[in-house]
Amino acid sequence: MGNVGTEVVRILRDHADDLRQRVGAPVVLRGIAVRRADIDRGVPQELLTTDAAALVARDDVDIVVEVIGGIDQPKSLILAALNSGKSVVTANKALLADYTGEIAEAAERNRADLYFEAAVAGAIPVVRPLMQSLAGDRVNRVVGIVNGTTNFILSAMAETGADYDVSLKEAGRLGYAEADPTADVEGYDAAAKAAILASLAFHTRVTAADVYREGISKVTAEDMETASAVGCTVKLLALCERVVDSDGKESISVRVYPALVPLTHPLASVNGAFNAVVVEADAAGRLMFYGQGAGGAPTASAVMGDLVMAARNKFYGGRGPGESTYAMLPIAPIGDTPTRYHVNMQVADRPGVLAGVAAEFSRREVSISAVRQEGAGDGARLVVVTHRATESALAETVAALSELDFEVVVKSVLRLEGTAE
Amino acid sequence: MGNVGTEVVRILRDHADDLRQRVGAPVVLRGIAVRRADIDRGVPQELLTTDAAALVARDDVDIVVEVIGGIDQPKSLILAALNSGKSVVTANKALLADYTGEIAEAAERNRADLYFEAAVAGAIPVVRPLMQSLAGDRVNRVVGIVNGTTNFILSAMAETGADYDVSLKEAGRLGYAEADPTADVEGYDAAAKAAILASLAFHTRVTAADVYREGISKVTAEDMETASAVGCTVKLLALCERVVDSDGKESISVRVYPALVPLTHPLASVNGAFNAVVVEADAAGRLMFYGQGAGGAPTASAVMGDLVMAARNKFYGGRGPGESTYAMLPIAPIGDTPTRYHVNMQVADRPGVLAGVAAEFSRREVSISAVRQEGAGDGARLVVVTHRATESALAETVAALSELDFEVVVKSVLRLEGTAE
Repeated sequence: MGNVGTEVVRILRDHADDLRQRVGAPVVLRGIAVRRADIDRGVPQELLTTDAAALVARDDVDIVVEVIGGIDQPKSLILAALNSGKSVVTANKALLADYTGEIAEAAERNRADLYFEAAVAGAIPVVRPLMQSLAGDRVNRVVGIVNGTTNFILSAMAETGADYDVSLKEAGRLGYAEADPTADVEGYDAAAKAAILASLAFHTRVTAADVYREGISKVTAEDMETASAVGCTVKLLALCERVVDSDGKESISVRVYPALVPLTHPLASVNGAFNAVVVEADAAGRLMFYGQGAGGAPTASAVMGDLVMAARNKFYGGRGPGESTYAMLPIAPIGDTPTRYHVNMQVADRPGVLAGVAAEFSRREVSISAVRQEGAGDGARLVVVTHRATESALAETVAALSELDFEVVVKSVLRLEGTAE
Repeated sequence: MGNVGTEVVRILRDHADDLRQRVGAPVVLRGIAVRRADIDRGVPQELLTTDAAALVARDDVDIVVEVIGGIDQPKSLILAALNSGKSVVTANKALLADYTGEIAEAAERNRADLYFEAAVAGAIPVVRPLMQSLAGDRVNRVVGIVNGTTNFILSAMAETGADYDVSLKEAGRLGYAEADPTADVEGYDAAAKAAILASLAFHTRVTAADVYREGISKVTAEDMETASAVGCTVKLLALCERVVDSDGKESISVRVYPALVPLTHPLASVNGAFNAVVVEADAAGRLMFYGQGAGGAPTASAVMGDLVMAARNKFYGGRGPGESTYAMLPIAPIGDTPTRYHVNMQVADRPGVLAGVAAEFSRREVSISAVRQEGAGDGARLVVVTHRATESALAETVAALSELDFEVVVKSVLRLEGTAE
C-alpha cells in the first residue's frame, strides 16, 4: 500500500461494478501484504497481512499484483505465484530488467499470464502496443523520455538557465526527486526501462547490464546554452536501435544518455515530469506515445488494465503473449554504435588550425556535417557537428585533437539524436 | 489488393519467418479475393480469386482480413466468416460504425475474434489501448484528429492563409484528397471513427447516426485569421465526452466539428496528414497517441498486429476482448452539449451596445470569459469568448442578438475546445 498500491485498492473499491462488467466476473480483493498491519489504512483490517508469501500461496488467490519494489522479495513472490499457475501483474522494472529470463520462463512453463505495462512509462500504453499492436511490423528504433525526475531537472535547466545542482534541489523540494536520486539521475531507472523496451521491440533478451548508461549529473548550464544556440535542447534518452552493418549483419544498440535533440523533434517538447516514447517501424512509420510516466494514479491505471486482462483470461481462458526472444540479436558494444556528435572546442585562431582539426576527423572517417567558428585569438571557439560515426571513432578523434601541436581544447562532446544522417 | 491489401501481402511474404516465430505457427496466405484475377499483381496467380465468398468459406481458412471497403459485400463476408467461427481483422470504420451491433454479436455468439485496430487512426494503436490498457480506468474524454485529408487542408490554410477551395485543390493534387472528397471534408469519415472511439471509451453502443457532425467546407481564411489572432488554430476534432449533469446523471456526447484549439494544446501541433488521439482518464490523466493515420503501409501495420494476435489465439486458444456495451449511457443531444464559443460580431459603436450584447448572453446563462472590441463606428468588431455553455443556449443567444434594435451582425461562431472551463 504505497503510492501505487493505495490507488489500485481505491479503484478496486470505487469501480467494482465497472470491473465486474468488464471482466465478466467480480474482481475480489483477497488481501493486501503490508510491512505493518497495525496502521489504519482505510481498508478493512482483515485484508491486511504482513505475511506476503502466505497471501500469495492462498488457494483463493488467482492473480497477484506486485507493487512492492526492490528485487529479492518481489522476485520470490512472483516466482511462487507463477509456479502455482497464478497470473502476475507487476510494475517492477528493475526486477524485470535483471531477471526477465527466469521470470518469463516461469510464466511460460506454467502457462501463466505475466503483465507489466506499468513497468515502463507509467500510464502510457507502450508495452502492449509493442507486444501486440506492432507484432506484425518490424520495429527499427524506440527512443523515449522514460524518467520523469531527470526530465523535470533538464526542463528546469533549459527554462531557467540554472545549474544541475540547483535544478536537482528544486526537483527534490517539489517531490520530483527522491532523497537519494542516484537511480534516476545516473540513468539506472531509464536503463532498466530501455532493457525492457529493447526486449519487446527486437524479440531479444536484453538485461540492464546490456545497456550503455550515462546519467545527467554532468550536464552543465553551458551545455544547455550550447544546445539552445543550435536549435536543440538536452534530454535524457533511452535509445533502442536496430543496427545493420555493411555486410547486412544485424545487431541492436541499447543506451541511455543525455543528448541534443532538435527543437523540431516531437520529444523536444516533452517537458517536466512527462514521459514519451517514439517508436519507428517499417510499415507504421513513426508513432509517439505521450503521458504521465510516474505517480500513484497513472501507474495504477496501467496496473488495472493488466489486471482486467489477466482476470478475463482467468475467466474465459486464454493467455496474453509471453516473452518472445527468438531473434536473439547480438548487442552491439557502445564503441561500434553510430550516432552524431556536437564537438565544442576552444582553439587558437591561427592559420591551419581548422585544416588540422578537420584532418583528424577525416582520418578516422568521422564525416563533418557543419562547422562554426566564433571569436578570435586564443579564445576562439570551434564547433563541429558530425554525421553518424561510431563512438570509438569519435573517441579516437577527440584523443588525437588533444595531442595536436597547435592548441585545441575539447570543451564538450554532446551526442545529437533525432535528426537525419 | 488495394493500398492496404498489397502491403499486407508484402509483409506476409517478406516477414514470413518473423511472423511464424511470433505466432508460434506459420501464417499461410490461402488466397486473395480481387475484382479482376487476370491482372499480374506480383503474387502467384493461383492465390487470386474473384469469388470472395467461396474463399471465406474454405475449410483451410482460419482468419479473414477484410480491407475491401464499402458496406454490403464486406458485411456479408465478415458475418459469414464469424458465423463459421473464423477470426476477422478489418479496417472498415464505416461498416463498424453502422453495424457494430450485428457484427459484434456474431463474433460473441461464435466466440470468434473480431479485431479492428486499423479502423481508427491507421497505424496508431488506439483501439487496443482503449479496450485493454485502459480497461481498469475510467475514461472521461477522447479528442482526436482522426482524418488526414481535413487536417492536411486545415494545416495548409493555417500556414499559407489560403482559402478552403485552394487548399482542397492542393490536397487533391498531392494525393491527400480523393476525387470526391465528401466523406472526408464533410466529416463522415471522422464521425465513423468517433462512433468507434466512443463505443470503446464508454462501454456503450454508438453508431455514426449518434454523432453530431459538421465538416470543414465552411471554414474560411478569415476564421483561420481569427484563430491565429487569439493564439489558436482550427482543427477538425472528433470529440467523445462523458457529460455529468447537475443531478449527477451521466450521458455521453459524440461530435465532429471544426473548432478553435489553443496553440499550447498538444493537438494544435499535429499537422499535415498526421493523426493524433488524446485520451483523458481518471487515473491515467492525459495520454496522447500520435502517428500516421492513413496510407497503405501504416494501415497494414495495424492489420498485421491484429492478424498476429488472432493467429496466436487460434493456435494457443483464448480470445481478445469482445464488444463491451454494459454501460449503455444515453447520448446527449447536441443542444444539451456544453462547450465554449468564440463569437465574432460586427456592431455599431454606440453607447449601450456592449451592455445590450452582454445582457443577451447573461439572460441565457451563457457566461462570458473575455470580450474584445476593435475599431470604431459602424464597422466596430466585438469578440466574445464564453465559458462552457450548451449549444442551445448559445444558439438562442445568437438568434436574440440578431434581433436587437441596435445593429449587431454575428459574423462567425467558432467552438473553442481543449481549454479549461
